[in-house]
Amino acid sequence: MAADNSIFVGSKPFMNYVTAVVMQFTVQNAKEVIIKARGKFISRAVDVAEVATKRFLQEQVEINDIEIDSEEFENKDGKNVRVSSIEITLNKK
Amino acid sequence: MAADNSIFVGSKPFMNYVTAVVMQFTVQNAKEVIIKARGKFISRAVDVAEVATKRFLQEQVEINDIEIDSEEFENKDGKNVRVSSIEITLNKK
Repeated sequence: MAADNSIFVGSKPFMNYVTAVVMQFTVQNAKEVIIKARGKFISRAVDVAEVATKRFLQEQVEINDIEIDSEEFENKDGKNVRVSSIEITLNKK
Repeated sequence: MAADNSIFVGSKPFMNYVTAVVMQFTVQNAKEVIIKARGKFISRAVDVAEVATKRFLQEQVEINDIEIDSEEFENKDGKNVRVSSIEITLNKK
């Protein structure tokens, strides 16, 4: 977990990320947490945001901003591939 | 393709959706197109939005709004499952 309250969603068990978000707001008393993901993990990042805000932190935390972006780079076969990313900003109400 | 310029992203070939978005703006002269997806197709919807706006319609179309949501329902085994969804609104500049 980064110092700036960012949580990168990847291939670990789903509830690890939900717990990380909830802990940031409760134990660490964060005002803002940013959930980030790339590629196929974007769907998962949305799930994490939804479960955290609707099941565990309802009435306390809301989705404040969603940004998407992408970058193009050359893969090992010399082919240009574009990888999308998402940043979901949650704020304490 | 719905009358309200919504495009639902699913399991068809990726470029079908990109083409559908581009055609809405060019052939149909739409001012706004909404890309929608649920569950694992959310990542794909983000890819469609990024490729459409950055490769095919750059300088012409921009991402105006992104909303995420989820609904909980009972699956056939009687278990509660939550399915996330996304709506990405693209507008002509």
